[in-house]
Amino acid sequence: MIQFSKRLAQTEEYYFSKKLKEVKALKEAGKPIINLGIGSPDLSPPKAVFQNFETALQETQAFQYQAYRGIDELRNAMSNFYKIHYAVQLDAEDEILPLMGSKEGIMLTSMAFLNEGDEVLIPNPGYPTYAAVTKLLNCVPNYYALSGDKNWHPDLAELQKKDLSKVKMMWVNYPNMPTGADADRSQLQEIINFAIQHDILLVNDNPYSMILTENPFSIFQLTNAKKIALELNSMSKSFNLAGFRVGFLAGKSDFISAVLKVKSNMDSGMFFPIQQTASKVLKLDRTWFEELNTVYRKRREWVWKIADQLNLDYDKNSTGLFVWAKQKEAKKAADLADQLLYEANLFVTPGHIFGSQGEAYLRFSLCVVIDDLKTSLERVQKLKKKVL
Amino acid sequence: MIQFSKRLAQTEEYYFSKKLKEVKALKEAGKPIINLGIGSPDLSPPKAVFQNFETALQETQAFQYQAYRGIDELRNAMSNFYKIHYAVQLDAEDEILPLMGSKEGIMLTSMAFLNEGDEVLIPNPGYPTYAAVTKLLNCVPNYYALSGDKNWHPDLAELQKKDLSKVKMMWVNYPNMPTGADADRSQLQEIINFAIQHDILLVNDNPYSMILTENPFSIFQLTNAKKIALELNSMSKSFNLAGFRVGFLAGKSDFISAVLKVKSNMDSGMFFPIQQTASKVLKLDRTWFEELNTVYRKRREWVWKIADQLNLDYDKNSTGLFVWAKQKEAKKAADLADQLLYEANLFVTPGHIFGSQGEAYLRFSLCVVIDDLKTSLERVQKLKKKVL
Repeated sequence: MIQFSKRLAQTEEYYFSKKLKEVKALKEAGKPIINLGIGSPDLSPPKAVFQNFETALQETQAFQYQAYRGIDELRNAMSNFYKIHYAVQLDAEDEILPLMGSKEGIMLTSMAFLNEGDEVLIPNPGYPTYAAVTKLLNCVPNYYALSGDKNWHPDLAELQKKDLSKVKMMWVNYPNMPTGADADRSQLQEIINFAIQHDILLVNDNPYSMILTENPFSIFQLTNAKKIALELNSMSKSFNLAGFRVGFLAGKSDFISAVLKVKSNMDSGMFFPIQQTASKVLKLDRTWFEELNTVYRKRREWVWKIADQLNLDYDKNSTGLFVWAKQKEAKKAADLADQLLYEANLFVTPGHIFGSQGEAYLRFSLCVVIDDLKTSLERVQKLKKKVL
Repeated sequence: MIQFSKRLAQTEEYYFSKKLKEVKALKEAGKPIINLGIGSPDLSPPKAVFQNFETALQETQAFQYQAYRGIDELRNAMSNFYKIHYAVQLDAEDEILPLMGSKEGIMLTSMAFLNEGDEVLIPNPGYPTYAAVTKLLNCVPNYYALSGDKNWHPDLAELQKKDLSKVKMMWVNYPNMPTGADADRSQLQEIINFAIQHDILLVNDNPYSMILTENPFSIFQLTNAKKIALELNSMSKSFNLAGFRVGFLAGKSDFISAVLKVKSNMDSGMFFPIQQTASKVLKLDRTWFEELNTVYRKRREWVWKIADQLNLDYDKNSTGLFVWAKQKEAKKAADLADQLLYEANLFVTPGHIFGSQGEAYLRFSLCVVIDDLKTSLERVQKLKKKVL
């Protein structure tokens, strides 16, 4: 009998991969499910995408292998994006690595720095892929708790108390998902200092910086960040291009080279028309983001109404694509999520899938049209009369 | 100081990643380099690609996240491709996994089955990525020699003599690259039996089956193959879609599920228009391949002339995108490759990069237009007069 690798024994299929199969089955059985669970942008990508793509398809090199490090035009556009939106200087030549989505970057970066048995500081709550990838490499997640009291930022005193002798790497994610906490620059500066002090590679996963934020954050705005940090960025949320699979890694050149060394042995350069189109789209000005955020702001008001009906607490200053809402009573939010799914045909993500610190929470996506949000509100009102 | 992972210390940047930088620099310095080195199809992809792509871009879900296992239409088309061209039945539901190119599949499959320290049987000569990925996972390449005497098939007696106690997996690649040897079904049946006997996962990397072959081979044509084997396939060479990044893994459902578990934690589903277009293109009939092979056959005759001028030996019955040609004298082929690059501005791949068994060989690509092949021949004739 062929045995699977040990890493698989501790790896779950990604939550949404499983759950969306159930949701699909319910839909096929005729249930009018509204998906408030997943952050897959439903709005159209910029018009420039369509125009450019068709031109790019006609180019001679369109269907040929591309360089592992991406086309120059794309790296230049990414560097420029950092200059304009974050006031951060990155050398397009060797401080940027285009990726097939930032999710890929979680694995590539981990492979470039982690040995079996190394520990990785991982936020609880946090994006499940940080721990999944850590386990896939037979490394050990060392969870640190985030809580609303510190606006979902790491508690430095608690971190300092940990045995850090095996810790090699730390994941942070600001603006934060699932909590929506915006980056607190002074708190994160302390984390940079902590990482330098303990020789821990700090990686900021940064896909939400353009959504409902006032002042886009990059880790590289902080003092000494480039010495110790890498940052993943993504076009998925900023440009409604989730399925396009374009992200990138930024940081100092020897870190980037190490990740490129892994990447060049695992895949090839991205499809040329995708790279070329991404380059154009990255040049869009603030108007694009203002229009996008106007839509999300309106939707968020409807989600707040739904949350109010469910008697949930939430922070009106939060950012990003989700509303993170807390059950006031001791009741488990997962039960409420089940009730919403099976009795009101509303799929909402229970907070526990992001870690134990999320158990009292539900995460609502803003990737839902207003009509569906109105229907959701009506269903919640009806459900409330019935049972809540 | 942040340390890189141990795996990086033994991992080279992929040969072509480095070498093509040098070739690019030579070109930029004004050298009229002709690239006979790399198998990147230069011919146009099928017309259907362009028509379908533009339609697919307009679909609602075009830019949204896609399921990890690919769209149904694509898995159906892949299953159908196996039925028509290889007379092999694969269940589109769970025996096929679309990939971003088959190269990605080398890593995903290795991660699903290998633990640190496991050994992997790897052909010498062979595609360097098998060993690179094995080392990236801190596993141990256990090379087996291929030679022209057995038409570049594994020597079963030699394999049986090896200590196989730590061997978990074996890479084969038929039709073979770099040698161009077509699959010998009876020899490979013995390898299937060997793998079953020793509980070794056999993976056939199969991107060249439609190029200059008479009777397309799949490992699943052999008795009991599905019990022990997986197969990687790719659209890169068969449809001139190298940069498109579409490949797939085929095999029994529990093997496929294990690989999907890895994949769902590492990336997301492919860009919808790519998947949808790939589905259409896979339906093309034999006419497409006949036209393609007519072009390659003509080019191959010119490459043979070049090889004749260089006094090299080659097999006229070989298949695939390359001519694998041997130096008759004891002289190292790498020296000849250097001479061709620096004195005749011809980039040819030296066989040693595929392993020590390739040291006497040069690999010429057929992805070169006839005019450039004629020029190459003239340059070789000139060089010969001068020094050879």
